[in-house]
Amino acid sequence: MKIAVLPGDGIGTEIVAEAVKVLNALDLGLEMEQAPVGGAGYEASGHPLPPATLKLAKEADAVLFGAVGDWKYDTLDRPLRPEQAILGLRKELGLFANFRPAICYEQLVGASSLKPELIAGLDILIIRELTGDIYFGQPRGRRTATDGHFPGAEEAFDTMRYSRPEIERIAHVAFQAAQKRSKRVTSVDKANVLETFQFWKDVVTEVGKQYPDVALDHMYVDNAAMQLVKAPKKFDVVVTGNMFGDILSDEAAMLTGSIGMLPSASLNDKKQGLYEPSHGSAPDIAGKGIANPLATILSAAMMLRFSLAQPEAADRVENAVKAVLAEGLRTPDIYSEGTTKVGTREMGEAVVKAL
Amino acid sequence: MKIAVLPGDGIGTEIVAEAVKVLNALDLGLEMEQAPVGGAGYEASGHPLPPATLKLAKEADAVLFGAVGDWKYDTLDRPLRPEQAILGLRKELGLFANFRPAICYEQLVGASSLKPELIAGLDILIIRELTGDIYFGQPRGRRTATDGHFPGAEEAFDTMRYSRPEIERIAHVAFQAAQKRSKRVTSVDKANVLETFQFWKDVVTEVGKQYPDVALDHMYVDNAAMQLVKAPKKFDVVVTGNMFGDILSDEAAMLTGSIGMLPSASLNDKKQGLYEPSHGSAPDIAGKGIANPLATILSAAMMLRFSLAQPEAADRVENAVKAVLAEGLRTPDIYSEGTTKVGTREMGEAVVKAL
Ligand SMILES: CC(C)[C@H](C(=O)O)[C@@H](O)C(=O)O
Ligand SMILES: CC(C)[C@H](C(=O)O)[C@@H](O)C(=O)O
Repeated sequence: MKIAVLPGDGIGTEIVAEAVKVLNALDLGLEMEQAPVGGAGYEASGHPLPPATLKLAKEADAVLFGAVGDWKYDTLDRPLRPEQAILGLRKELGLFANFRPAICYEQLVGASSLKPELIAGLDILIIRELTGDIYFGQPRGRRTATDGHFPGAEEAFDTMRYSRPEIERIAHVAFQAAQKRSKRVTSVDKANVLETFQFWKDVVTEVGKQYPDVALDHMYVDNAAMQLVKAPKKFDVVVTGNMFGDILSDEAAMLTGSIGMLPSASLNDKKQGLYEPSHGSAPDIAGKGIANPLATILSAAMMLRFSLAQPEAADRVENAVKAVLAEGLRTPDIYSEGTTKVGTREMGEAVVKAL
Repeated sequence: MKIAVLPGDGIGTEIVAEAVKVLNALDLGLEMEQAPVGGAGYEASGHPLPPATLKLAKEADAVLFGAVGDWKYDTLDRPLRPEQAILGLRKELGLFANFRPAICYEQLVGASSLKPELIAGLDILIIRELTGDIYFGQPRGRRTATDGHFPGAEEAFDTMRYSRPEIERIAHVAFQAAQKRSKRVTSVDKANVLETFQFWKDVVTEVGKQYPDVALDHMYVDNAAMQLVKAPKKFDVVVTGNMFGDILSDEAAMLTGSIGMLPSASLNDKKQGLYEPSHGSAPDIAGKGIANPLATILSAAMMLRFSLAQPEAADRVENAVKAVLAEGLRTPDIYSEGTTKVGTREMGEAVVKAL
């Protein structure tokens, strides 16, 4: 089993190093090969997703990804900016199913902005479609408006779109995920305004008939943004498009107060996957040895489960993370009085020990 | 001065009746004329925005709007559904500037999902562009895909777009609003993915140069959804497009915990405006006399200030609302132990008395 290891920028290298240690400690004979991506890719070979990196990712069974981006690349042309690497990988590998759990760990309830009773025990799974929608729809660009409020003016435009099979496959993923959980799916749309999402709602409803054991409900995206704040625990599986999923999954992650703990997985139809923490490259704390490696370590656990068919190893990693939290070890982002503050490396090594 | 009074559906009639009482009590000689809209419009004449209602709205200096929508209209064809009335009014009256304050009232801090220290004193103004973006962009519809992941499949699509003058005018509104507040504007975009919002960011930046006294920053929409949860008080004025504004303004409103208190205004370039509560028609509590009329009464205050040039009257209404809260009167949605529970009518009459 081969893993492409793409640390990227900022804290990416630090947190991925710890996840690699954990994977090595499992003694599964995993082959790991590292390559530059994002700003690091641009520095190394003039492109955020160098051809050799893409080739490695395509050939691997799974990609372990750190994070990309740094202010110093903000002035580059868009195709050269670090985040194009992540869009490129999603597209080239066909990673259409993004899993973003929002879990509130018992010991970290206090880190949330929300009152403890609203957040304790939270366990939502947001499933975001990741290769369609307005992210990739053509045409897009700038032109002279021919209609609308100001014909003749300069305008910019993008195309939102979803085809039936794209909606069907992500709906199946959501219903099947719900079958292993509390058997409830909330499909988030904006059917009252958008043709794309009226279609989304219709197709999800049809697919839902094949899963009579799963309860399906529909919610407008604006209402979903509210209900996540009001009563997040009412959700089980949330399925939505690429754009709405981007917004809602980040909102849900931040509700937990400990985004440094949240992993993610992006899968294609061959169970190849890209695994990355839900947080970003945090250039402000890069190189300081204080970043939280647990989201990346938990992403590695998701990789073991989803792409490498090693569920026991995944359990071991997840239990080791719970153990270090129970011991009271905390990186600064999740530190509170009465716990023990540790750095990135100490945290990673504590997880290895707890294995 | 003429006001079109459009109560609409659900609790709309109950809450608007109280706002009308408050306006009458001010003795400004306002002329008010009522017309059906939404489901009520459909019942009365087969269309959610009957021509006579639209005509009245166009001729008036301002529209006082309740709320529209009821489950019983869910099966109608989209063009006949109640919410089309509100989209139609925005378009026909050119109401491009939507003001959605998210304010946390001192006495209602406890109603928020957020910890009191994060929310006490919150005062954000979200300015949402309301007549452009993917809400109105053409073309849109269903078709057979010719490219993308599944050429030949059925797909649905919409067009996101913004022209330079559309962005410029809403940016001016935001900067001018900020000049009267804490002089900070956060422009929310998704410039890393969307052509439309790279353009948005560029144009807002240009307009910002005309307001050297206002600090401008830019934030991606996914990050904005997070920062609203993490540290809402860091925002002053937030300006964004129609779609992102729909989501973020509802999220921000719900953060306060008392959406029954939040007014809104939608203005065109002639200062004509539509004024409505930020909450919906709440068919589940309609007819029970328990809805909170304060958001509608505060919307009437915004109307006095923005469209009717009656700032003193607006102040009087706002102070009267503060007074009834200070007296401890509460409708059920904002009730807490130790306060006095009242109904819609009692609340409205208390405000009249406090004037
Ligand atoms: C970096 C950006 C293109 C990306 C996205 O919008 O998908 C990010 O926000 C994410 O959610 O992974
Ligand atoms: C009813 C709907 C069309 C509307 C919108 O999306 O604009 C509503 O959510 C709002 O925010 O006023």
